[in-house]
Amino acid sequence: MQSKSEVESRKSKVLAIDPGFDRIGIAILMKEETNPTSPRLRGAREKLLFSKCILTNKKESQSERLKQIGLEIKKIIKKWRPESLAIEKLFFNQNTSTALRVAEARGVILYESICAGLEIFEYSPQEIKLAVTGYGKAAKKEVEAMTLRLLTLKTAPKYDDEMDAQAIGITHLVSYKHKRLLSTD
Amino acid sequence: MQSKSEVESRKSKVLAIDPGFDRIGIAILMKEETNPTSPRLRGAREKLLFSKCILTNKKESQSERLKQIGLEIKKIIKKWRPESLAIEKLFFNQNTSTALRVAEARGVILYESICAGLEIFEYSPQEIKLAVTGYGKAAKKEVEAMTLRLLTLKTAPKYDDEMDAQAIGITHLVSYKHKRLLSTD
Repeated sequence: MQSKSEVESRKSKVLAIDPGFDRIGIAILMKEETNPTSPRLRGAREKLLFSKCILTNKKESQSERLKQIGLEIKKIIKKWRPESLAIEKLFFNQNTSTALRVAEARGVILYESICAGLEIFEYSPQEIKLAVTGYGKAAKKEVEAMTLRLLTLKTAPKYDDEMDAQAIGITHLVSYKHKRLLSTD
Repeated sequence: MQSKSEVESRKSKVLAIDPGFDRIGIAILMKEETNPTSPRLRGAREKLLFSKCILTNKKESQSERLKQIGLEIKKIIKKWRPESLAIEKLFFNQNTSTALRVAEARGVILYESICAGLEIFEYSPQEIKLAVTGYGKAAKKEVEAMTLRLLTLKTAPKYDDEMDAQAIGITHLVSYKHKRLLSTD
């Protein structure tokens, strides 16, 4: 049987994804209690457990690249067993052909997640900026700096997509933490 | 061991899909030899083995509907064992939100098909009209009438999406037949 704290920590483990087609940013984050033995100082911070950037093979067909994305997501879910998926909301950019390809990849990500029983949460770019920096129109650099600071990381990952996934994960955990604080107050 | 004709017929069995989000048209078609014993009169026609229209539940979330689509496609592939997927090419309509949702569903369809080892073929609306009616700018009604005639069906299915899938399947088999005729001439 799982202990209460095991259930708690599983509940707050999130697979965060910055959807794309050439590159897909992936991060697994969870809430970690700080000073669990002191009721007065007890808090929680966001901890990064794993992150990577999936690079799809440009020489392969669209379908083969979708297969690569789906199978990698499946493997990561199986290994890390997150309870939720946090993913950026659909938005539309000027390049329609790119947007449709990204949407196809996003469909595969949602599909593998829901088939594995994950709960799905979507966040807009504005919600992510607000959650990470406190300002909904923050610049990309500011979001990056705060992401590093909140996760106590010294250096940024090679690809922005991975960093974006981490920011989405923070957004999800912060929302969850707020809900929990409100409910236990 | 499979006989040569079994391999041949398996090769020409196609899963044809008109991608959508609320409704997805599905058809399984194959080539059937006519007068196989007479070298002079021998020919081939397109035969419809199965067709349906998947209707997704509008009350469910986007992700749940993607799950429904993917699992149904998987079941149909397992039952009918087609060798190829023929699907309409990505195109862009005015409603961006609908286009992105359809692209997500299309991603799931491509994903389940490639994971099951199907070869993927895409056809544009113009190619479909040309293959079915001989005229690339044919009206929808003309495509429907020719689809019914070619498949020797008396009545149209309830949903256009199902009929569109049948037309995509014919397009694929006609292209395949042409290639084969050229190679054996």
